[in-house]
Amino acid sequence: MFNLKQLEQVIHEKIPISKEMGISLESYNETGLTLKAPLYKNINHRQTAFGGSLSAVATLSGWTFLYLTLNKWEQPAQIVIQESSIVYLRPVTGDFQAVCEWPEAASLEFFRGMYLKKGKARIKLASKIFLGTELAASFSGVYVALEPGK
Amino acid sequence: MFNLKQLEQVIHEKIPISKEMGISLESYNETGLTLKAPLYKNINHRQTAFGGSLSAVATLSGWTFLYLTLNKWEQPAQIVIQESSIVYLRPVTGDFQAVCEWPEAASLEFFRGMYLKKGKARIKLASKIFLGTELAASFSGVYVALEPGK
Repeated sequence: MFNLKQLEQVIHEKIPISKEMGISLESYNETGLTLKAPLYKNINHRQTAFGGSLSAVATLSGWTFLYLTLNKWEQPAQIVIQESSIVYLRPVTGDFQAVCEWPEAASLEFFRGMYLKKGKARIKLASKIFLGTELAASFSGVYVALEPGK
Repeated sequence: MFNLKQLEQVIHEKIPISKEMGISLESYNETGLTLKAPLYKNINHRQTAFGGSLSAVATLSGWTFLYLTLNKWEQPAQIVIQESSIVYLRPVTGDFQAVCEWPEAASLEFFRGMYLKKGKARIKLASKIFLGTELAASFSGVYVALEPGK
């Protein structure tokens, strides 16, 4: 349905720092949207992942989730992030994943309804950073979708 | 007192993504700590700065402020970020600055006292992203300083 590899290339072109961070699109399914990034491109002075990189990858996971979901609905939109917060739970000592979780059905339905009605809608998405199976950071972002041209 | 150019090089070496983002250390004075970054290295699909880059540069501004302040006190420490939040106020259409503001004297004194007593202390720092003189994003981060080896 979606060519993730193609979308990954578009993101790398449009947001070049995502390529420098080595971000790849792993999956988009009923769990949500998963991005991957290698430690070595995002390493800090403590040989763990730089907090700013974790925040950036989480930010992009929500954006990409919304992009794919709106496209699935055949409602391509401009998507911007409005605000976010992140809690760092443990040092990230290896390659990591950012998983934007599928929101509750009611929340997504409300978002969809607002977008169809107003051409503008807002949704809060939760993303988690994982080091293997260990939860390493918890992110929440508010994204706005706008009809193209709005 | 501090050689900012030298510290910038160390940061670029230790956190290579900061070099890819084109981050430079502009000043450390009574206002706080100012980092600069060019739009072209942090651009997104809308020709404005990628939110994840803004968050990352703001994260680094607080870290660098604390690093320099602890070194000024001759208390080199390990510094990690614990949590942060950011509000995006307007699109960043050009090169930008991240200014970690000098905290209130009482807050900094409390932090210093705790660090000297316990070898561990926590402080909340505020950073602002500016596009010229326009405020473009507002960031807040909680950082922890730990005695080396703790």
